[in-house]
Amino acid sequence: MLTRRDLAGLVASALAVPAARAGDAPGTQHGVHDMSSMPASWTGKEQIAFLIYPEFTALDMVGPHYMFTSLMGATTHLVAKDRNPVISDAGLSFNPSMTFENCPADLDIICVPGGSLGTLAAMQDEATIRFLRDRGSRARFVTSVCTGSLILGAAGLLTGYRATSHWATRPLLPIFGAIPTEGRVVRDRNRITGGGVTAGIDFGLQLVGQLRDREYAEGVQLLAEYAPEPPYDAGTPKRAPSEVTKMMSDMFVDFNKQAEAVGRAAYAKYRDG
Amino acid sequence: MLTRRDLAGLVASALAVPAARAGDAPGTQHGVHDMSSMPASWTGKEQIAFLIYPEFTALDMVGPHYMFTSLMGATTHLVAKDRNPVISDAGLSFNPSMTFENCPADLDIICVPGGSLGTLAAMQDEATIRFLRDRGSRARFVTSVCTGSLILGAAGLLTGYRATSHWATRPLLPIFGAIPTEGRVVRDRNRITGGGVTAGIDFGLQLVGQLRDREYAEGVQLLAEYAPEPPYDAGTPKRAPSEVTKMMSDMFVDFNKQAEAVGRAAYAKYRDG
Repeated sequence: MLTRRDLAGLVASALAVPAARAGDAPGTQHGVHDMSSMPASWTGKEQIAFLIYPEFTALDMVGPHYMFTSLMGATTHLVAKDRNPVISDAGLSFNPSMTFENCPADLDIICVPGGSLGTLAAMQDEATIRFLRDRGSRARFVTSVCTGSLILGAAGLLTGYRATSHWATRPLLPIFGAIPTEGRVVRDRNRITGGGVTAGIDFGLQLVGQLRDREYAEGVQLLAEYAPEPPYDAGTPKRAPSEVTKMMSDMFVDFNKQAEAVGRAAYAKYRDG
Repeated sequence: MLTRRDLAGLVASALAVPAARAGDAPGTQHGVHDMSSMPASWTGKEQIAFLIYPEFTALDMVGPHYMFTSLMGATTHLVAKDRNPVISDAGLSFNPSMTFENCPADLDIICVPGGSLGTLAAMQDEATIRFLRDRGSRARFVTSVCTGSLILGAAGLLTGYRATSHWATRPLLPIFGAIPTEGRVVRDRNRITGGGVTAGIDFGLQLVGQLRDREYAEGVQLLAEYAPEPPYDAGTPKRAPSEVTKMMSDMFVDFNKQAEAVGRAAYAKYRDG
């Protein structure tokens, strides 16, 4: 939405929406809200990076990305191992905005989305883990959505921290010395981990509220029309009908076995640098 | 998640997840759930297309895309005017999977995401409107999220239909002969329009329930861990604090003026083919 771009620093993107165009009467504005009435504290200069990797789950990233790109003054990057398109688990093809090499050294937020087999591959990828360990050692917030916490865990970034993951993989967190904790968004010091997929939206909006203030975040929520009305009540293992929970839990048995083996090996390899 | 790919026809993507690998003991499976116990009605063959265009809002598309790619047997396309990367309003770069020319002629679902200035440009783009009019004339479901309904409207596809849009642009729908209607997801015959941005998730899950059944959709909801917990209660103009609603409404005044002018011109131009 236009107004989201206002919030996200429309003024800066003069190319897309010039405040005035050639031939305009003096003072003409094109969709640029008068931002002079906004409190100075509403503008920041955060550097935010999402890691993306083959077969990640796009919604894990795009939910919080919407929220973070609503932070006026912030810069948000999509970081991958190289410049090749990164294909999500559902077949969406993304072009990364930068690679590990040119990602800013000091990040305000590093965020790792989840996935399934691609997540296991990322947990085993040395360049990916080294990147996360490096940026994670200095980032103001080290965060994940869904099974992204397994990658943070493999990188040794959740050792001794309370954390969550997708409901089905949360029991794996002790492999990495993390403490599995109930909650849609779990925060322990500067580690913030979200539950499965859609939890990223709640995580992102919560962090917007912290980085700006409540009124700002409420504006972003209204812009996103985030007044969810799920058509069914099956979003957690406890709330879903028991046969649905059983069906979906059964589907994870084999994946979790693989994830446990991969996780133990990666954590053993990377925990000491 | 792996299990989502199960649901989405993991069996077919043998390359990514071979049912057995060289060197495995006979009968070994890697993450492939036994799908023989699933009802045959859980597999379809829908052809689904999302229109993408410069400066669209990614979350409008990625929310329902998650849901639709959970439909076993369905094929989901990202269709653009040409093969160039399409940059979203928040800077995400997507590679389309096909162009207007090679998009299947008969679609089960055509879905148009919203945006702001890019949406106005799409409303004025002849190739885009012709594509929508053509596919929309035969599609089983003609759908939109957020201000995507303005594009459907410009293409003459909402004339005489009840519809919604982002809360701020819903009052513009009569320009296109549509009847603005309250509701997070509004359905009138085969037209389904969602409200702003995050409404696309509810829209997508609802349609999954219709195309399969309730239990299937509940499984998808559980996989997405879709049990939202918005940190604030500001997702609609009525629920947000009045000063927040005023601030955000003010931001739309200028955009709505532009949208009205563009909409009237496009509708007059395209309504009669």
